[in-house]
Amino acid sequence: MSIRVKILGSNSATPAHRRHHTSQLVNVEGKYYLIDCGEATQLQMKRYKLRAQRINNIFISHLHGDHYLGLMGLLSSMHLMGRHKPLNLYGPKGLAEIITLQLKYSETVFNYEVNFVEVDTEKHQLIHEDELVCIYSIPLNHRIPCSGFLIEEKPKNRRIRREAIPEDFSVRNIIRLKKGEDIYSEDGKLLHKNEDMTLPPRQSFKYAYCSDTKYDESIIPIIEGSDMLYHESTFLEEHMDRASVTYHSTAKEAATIAKKAGVGKLLLGHFSARYKELEPIQEEAREVFEESHLAIEGEEFILDS
Amino acid sequence: MSIRVKILGSNSATPAHRRHHTSQLVNVEGKYYLIDCGEATQLQMKRYKLRAQRINNIFISHLHGDHYLGLMGLLSSMHLMGRHKPLNLYGPKGLAEIITLQLKYSETVFNYEVNFVEVDTEKHQLIHEDELVCIYSIPLNHRIPCSGFLIEEKPKNRRIRREAIPEDFSVRNIIRLKKGEDIYSEDGKLLHKNEDMTLPPRQSFKYAYCSDTKYDESIIPIIEGSDMLYHESTFLEEHMDRASVTYHSTAKEAATIAKKAGVGKLLLGHFSARYKELEPIQEEAREVFEESHLAIEGEEFILDS
Repeated sequence: MSIRVKILGSNSATPAHRRHHTSQLVNVEGKYYLIDCGEATQLQMKRYKLRAQRINNIFISHLHGDHYLGLMGLLSSMHLMGRHKPLNLYGPKGLAEIITLQLKYSETVFNYEVNFVEVDTEKHQLIHEDELVCIYSIPLNHRIPCSGFLIEEKPKNRRIRREAIPEDFSVRNIIRLKKGEDIYSEDGKLLHKNEDMTLPPRQSFKYAYCSDTKYDESIIPIIEGSDMLYHESTFLEEHMDRASVTYHSTAKEAATIAKKAGVGKLLLGHFSARYKELEPIQEEAREVFEESHLAIEGEEFILDS
Repeated sequence: MSIRVKILGSNSATPAHRRHHTSQLVNVEGKYYLIDCGEATQLQMKRYKLRAQRINNIFISHLHGDHYLGLMGLLSSMHLMGRHKPLNLYGPKGLAEIITLQLKYSETVFNYEVNFVEVDTEKHQLIHEDELVCIYSIPLNHRIPCSGFLIEEKPKNRRIRREAIPEDFSVRNIIRLKKGEDIYSEDGKLLHKNEDMTLPPRQSFKYAYCSDTKYDESIIPIIEGSDMLYHESTFLEEHMDRASVTYHSTAKEAATIAKKAGVGKLLLGHFSARYKELEPIQEEAREVFEESHLAIEGEEFILDS
């Protein structure tokens, strides 16, 4: 198990056809990262039996309501359910002010610390790092300041070949092996070559999330070679005029970006309420990029080796 | 058909057991009044096939998230679905500021006018009047400024007895009859006595909505004689300590208010997430006041004559 992306919602603007607003839960080896948080995200998490308290990092792409109006409710529920663990909240200028104002009028002080990190939506830079991942902002081209997110797994440890390990082997030496080191005796004699005791590390994956944006090739160098790309595809080509004035993309445009960036797989989402049936969106994308998939809520997309 | 109250949600604090946050749609002869608007209210309206654009007046009791976090999404959807009709929004100090700040960062100007009316939660006064109803604030006793709402139907017209009306009778005279006037000839001679041509008007009803509040008898003179009262009943008596510190009521307390105010029917709601089964709440209330009912979402309570 490596990166698992659970789609909690992928409709744009107004909820429709039983589809919810944008939110994705990214699970990296059991750690939860929430990306965007449209209205009712906490209800969607309950529906899919995902525990909100396991989230320690939330990333908001921009301040259109369909991407963040579920956030205040989620944060409040975390508080009411007894959270004490701090939470990191990444988003554009204004997000902290909105949350703070709502807390002021509800006369609420959370039991846990919210560490607001303002994302500069003009820059591609490292915004979050922990033991598992580095997460970078991706400047997007939308009507208001908007950032995508690139989640890169860190290189993993080499895997121990259990059958090769003597019974009296120390934990300290196991750690050395995982890091790729050879094992020496105290007087500096080579005892075990790493390659005899370990297997290569599991693959590290790269997931790029790009919503909302018009077609813009400037993101290609950033997302190039990602194992999976979520790129908004609000419209079909037949509505490209709408896409253009609203700073959104068509399915064909999303697929073109995927192809030019050489990604492994494309997830299509942020569907306009005008489309009840989504198959035409997938078909249009597949004409350009075969590995195109609909990010339908409830689906999970797994990057594994 | 007179007043119909559709329950869209009646859970408190955190959504649980598939129960949603507080919201009620009050339908007075086809006109929609929305009272409170917890997260996902717009989704609940879709679920029950209620058209959001028919709402012209929204009333928010207080600024705890479970009573208003669905508002911004609902207003946005009205905008995106092409609304141009103005909307009246009644609520405590702070509500306009929160909405305005969110609009600022989403760089959105609604296509329709929102007429913010700040409710003084300390006062019992007329806050809204139209051709069908007068709506009054009810000062409640909660942790933060909070107001209930009393919806009073205006006296209705007398009903025309069709079989008593001559064919050549004028529309102007029909209107006079509805208002209770007798009909005179141009030279002042009594032609028709009103009571021969009409039936008494249909009954006008009174619905009181009280959430959230601790037990407080000072509301009794305001809600006295209401045909229906919604009174929060977050807890059972066995958790009255919790009720007290959180400024909420128990089912028994709600029923006591109902009894002392001599209302026709009591709706119980704002249930704590700790209760999966709600029957004990109803049972506790019925020991004090027989006409106690659970305000379960999807249920409609009708005041009719």
